[in-house]
Amino acid sequence: MLKVGLFGLGTVGQGLLEISRNSKLPFEIVAIVDRSYKKKSKITGNIAASDNPSLILDDNDIDLVVELMGGIDLPLFIIREALDKKKNVITANKFLLAEHGFALFTKAQDNGVKIGFEAAVAGAIPVIRNLENIFWYEDISLLEGILNGTTNYILTKMRTEKKEYEYALKDAQKLGFAEADPTLDVSGMDAAHKLALLASHITKSWIEYKSIYVRGIENIRLNDILWTEKAGYRIRLISRCQRIDGKVYLSVEPSIILPGHYLWDVENENNAIVFQGMYSGIHMFVGKGAGSLPTAYSVLSDIMHITQGNHNPYLMHNFVWRYNHPGSVEDKESAFYMRLLVMDEPGVLADIAKVLSEHSISIASVHQDAPIQISDHPVDLILITHKCLRKSLQTSITALEKLNSVKSVPVFLPIDEN
Amino acid sequence: MLKVGLFGLGTVGQGLLEISRNSKLPFEIVAIVDRSYKKKSKITGNIAASDNPSLILDDNDIDLVVELMGGIDLPLFIIREALDKKKNVITANKFLLAEHGFALFTKAQDNGVKIGFEAAVAGAIPVIRNLENIFWYEDISLLEGILNGTTNYILTKMRTEKKEYEYALKDAQKLGFAEADPTLDVSGMDAAHKLALLASHITKSWIEYKSIYVRGIENIRLNDILWTEKAGYRIRLISRCQRIDGKVYLSVEPSIILPGHYLWDVENENNAIVFQGMYSGIHMFVGKGAGSLPTAYSVLSDIMHITQGNHNPYLMHNFVWRYNHPGSVEDKESAFYMRLLVMDEPGVLADIAKVLSEHSISIASVHQDAPIQISDHPVDLILITHKCLRKSLQTSITALEKLNSVKSVPVFLPIDEN
Repeated sequence: MLKVGLFGLGTVGQGLLEISRNSKLPFEIVAIVDRSYKKKSKITGNIAASDNPSLILDDNDIDLVVELMGGIDLPLFIIREALDKKKNVITANKFLLAEHGFALFTKAQDNGVKIGFEAAVAGAIPVIRNLENIFWYEDISLLEGILNGTTNYILTKMRTEKKEYEYALKDAQKLGFAEADPTLDVSGMDAAHKLALLASHITKSWIEYKSIYVRGIENIRLNDILWTEKAGYRIRLISRCQRIDGKVYLSVEPSIILPGHYLWDVENENNAIVFQGMYSGIHMFVGKGAGSLPTAYSVLSDIMHITQGNHNPYLMHNFVWRYNHPGSVEDKESAFYMRLLVMDEPGVLADIAKVLSEHSISIASVHQDAPIQISDHPVDLILITHKCLRKSLQTSITALEKLNSVKSVPVFLPIDEN
Repeated sequence: MLKVGLFGLGTVGQGLLEISRNSKLPFEIVAIVDRSYKKKSKITGNIAASDNPSLILDDNDIDLVVELMGGIDLPLFIIREALDKKKNVITANKFLLAEHGFALFTKAQDNGVKIGFEAAVAGAIPVIRNLENIFWYEDISLLEGILNGTTNYILTKMRTEKKEYEYALKDAQKLGFAEADPTLDVSGMDAAHKLALLASHITKSWIEYKSIYVRGIENIRLNDILWTEKAGYRIRLISRCQRIDGKVYLSVEPSIILPGHYLWDVENENNAIVFQGMYSGIHMFVGKGAGSLPTAYSVLSDIMHITQGNHNPYLMHNFVWRYNHPGSVEDKESAFYMRLLVMDEPGVLADIAKVLSEHSISIASVHQDAPIQISDHPVDLILITHKCLRKSLQTSITALEKLNSVKSVPVFLPIDEN
């Protein structure tokens, strides 16, 4: 019977306790460390509890540490200590791993122990283990995912309930799908942490999350949603890892997808991952991206995996511990959606078309819905371009914003054809 | 370096050879047995080849046997021999396993070896390993899948190209998605073999495929497809395993699904599996259901799994080797779609409505598109019922077919609301 020490008795920690009490499992949670352990004595029951990490760290009978505290500094200290004491570690902390993973995984390897982090990426979807074990010998040229449930929920509600961003965000907060401070989610950074971990698997080398091109959903307005819906498209926050000629290109950004796209029907707080293997073709995994029991089940499956003494190629062998420097997405081509805030006056479209043409950008379609009567308020102008270099598009935006008639270019989104 | 013996050098066997030559893998195919090994000498190259099974079976250096021959009698003999000689076995032969699995898995267990069969169920989708390893401790109340690519291809083509069944089937045969004799696929039996293997995992007991309620797609006409499309529905051949109060209910049959259903967008020869876990919620896996390299990759992943000495709960422990007797789907409720072939004459609808009402079946909607001018040809009458017991529906069909005005009831399909 494996003895497990649990740090953090929040939502996921409580979920894990619930599952482990319900099922006949070959492990036992023998100690819990939580700041508010005194308040939670009804939950901890007869399990030893404390707010002092040494309860677990100094117990030589504990073989495996589960870290579900959140934050950075304290969990980092705890994981380091646990690894040094040759305890296996399981964590759901994607921020911590994306930030300090290189050092931590190396330390784990040096100490002959493992770090399980299935719960850190895409909640209940067992994507890490599938990439580690089943698809290790695949050559994966493309991976795309909806890796953040909060933003997917917000974008879904904006479309289905015709709500502005701020109101959809408030709904998500009320339902517990968004934090009081939603920055990490809505900025795309949380998805970037997860994408870095996935891309490291695919490239078998370490990807820094800071090297990922990241844009959030904060500037998406209901108008963008309505227009894309009218055109038969949808907007999703897509995390993307593509390998071309040995280079890897990484991005997290709101993107337009067309009907038939694998991620078309992934709604609300669900997560999904699609990837293209050289041998086995396209795969899609869909599941709950968060939640107490779904995330706890991923922790449980890591515990079982480690207790069964299974091999783990990612951590144990075959992995090249070197940094991988991604290529620049600016060098890649795409069609784009753009929303410009323009003055409603004669000659505007001519000016804009001229700038785009000077940057070799060809307009596929244009859309403006201003009232017949000319007003002095700026209005939205929607443009869809043909395929062009992102670099050209970005230079053209700088040039466009210099035009007197263009107030700003608040939104541009690539059109994802995969 | 593990030594592998390969039986059968057809599409999948050749795919496996191709992958194993391209990648740096810790195993080697050292012997090939194939009926036409002489004609295939360019493919076998410097690997020992023969049409005599003893080339592999009598070689004590061969630890693992891959059986990709097809058929029943010869592979059954070979697998039995291999297991008796304590060789691990990997097979893609779902018919064989569904028919003889109980005896074969028991024999493998007695001899301390394993049978891998990822490639036998849903092609490239790693559903067996996910159920065996990751979701072993889940309580799965419902599993649904599109487990047969041929029938899904035919149903997709009927809808998108407005083709009658016979023509869509011919297309599938031309493209290699259907066999010259398509009976196993179109009758639903192939899907039933796979469902039996999946259901055995979920129930952790042996399910006989013969105990599954199976209906094929042979009677689906273009008219059914067109009408359901007009109503906003789709028809898919759904394999289904549901646990209610400890009883398991199993069916393979063409069913109507509504928009938003997980299987809505799974088109052409793709396969998909959806299941509902008590802890981790709903999961979906989508991927290629067949093909040389996709299926071969599943064989490869089984080889790697076995060579890594990983535990395998399904085969090694926890599995209760007893037969499980499913409940009768006739005792379950569903709404139904029915197509009746009726005479176009006064009073027909009254007669039909009376029979249904006598069986406590309530009509939700009715649809008939006969020409204004009454003819003496029978016409299609489409009915959608409210929820009713399948038993009542089946009895009512017998009664309906006794009416003078009803020629037959060629099609009835449950409406799958999950």
